[in-house]
Amino acid sequence: MRARDLVADFPTVRLDTPVIEAARLLAEQDLPGLIVVDERGLPASILPGTQVLRLAVPGYCLDDPALARVVDEAHADAFLDKLANRTVREALPAKPRELPVTDPDATVLELAALMARTHSPLVAVVDDSGLQGAVTLQALVDRLVER
Amino acid sequence: MRARDLVADFPTVRLDTPVIEAARLLAEQDLPGLIVVDERGLPASILPGTQVLRLAVPGYCLDDPALARVVDEAHADAFLDKLANRTVREALPAKPRELPVTDPDATVLELAALMARTHSPLVAVVDDSGLQGAVTLQALVDRLVER
Repeated sequence: MRARDLVADFPTVRLDTPVIEAARLLAEQDLPGLIVVDERGLPASILPGTQVLRLAVPGYCLDDPALARVVDEAHADAFLDKLANRTVREALPAKPRELPVTDPDATVLELAALMARTHSPLVAVVDDSGLQGAVTLQALVDRLVER
Repeated sequence: MRARDLVADFPTVRLDTPVIEAARLLAEQDLPGLIVVDERGLPASILPGTQVLRLAVPGYCLDDPALARVVDEAHADAFLDKLANRTVREALPAKPRELPVTDPDATVLELAALMARTHSPLVAVVDDSGLQGAVTLQALVDRLVER
């Protein structure tokens, strides 16, 4: 079994997509994460769902959980509103991380190792003609346990 | 909105649960991860789905993706079989990490910060009477965007 046997179409967002729209896509389509593509349609970043949240959480709350606690309930409920028109580009982490991107030949072991190492429940599959889609953790685990 | 408003029952595994059974639970119930409980029923570890995979992937493949590539397709397909009766306890990482565990009073901002910081799509909710369940990323994002 190879990545080509497990790949499926996957929605993408662009670097200039508003973060709030990205969060909405994640929620509405029940996605494990998002593929951010550049102008050429190639993966610029792969964001696991937890890291889409990270785009929206103020930095001081990420650094120190005690500071998140002092924000009262009403303000906490409204934290997404602060995003206004912030785009995915503005919210991406400065230091680039290893991207969970592979080619259609990757084996299930490579896919599993890549997901485990990058903490990403999706891997983008790219070949010479561009982005082919993604393999999700769920698709991979389903096939692994049904053998 | 507080953790108590978002918490839902969540299946647990024990430290002596075989890894293969944990993987099956993840696949069959379409879970974002697993709560591992100790003898008292309290969270000993919270494993995002990607880290359940990590339990099953040989260490040399995690360290070096090139080594995962040299394993041929047939052996890669069968990598889960190597697990035999390995338990969750034997496969847990040696160094303990911050656990995404909170109390029913946590706000949505605290939940989001905790998920983002620990890369965990689920947070266990514990009070004086024990484990109350979990808040999933999906439940949190659904409520955040529908406001």
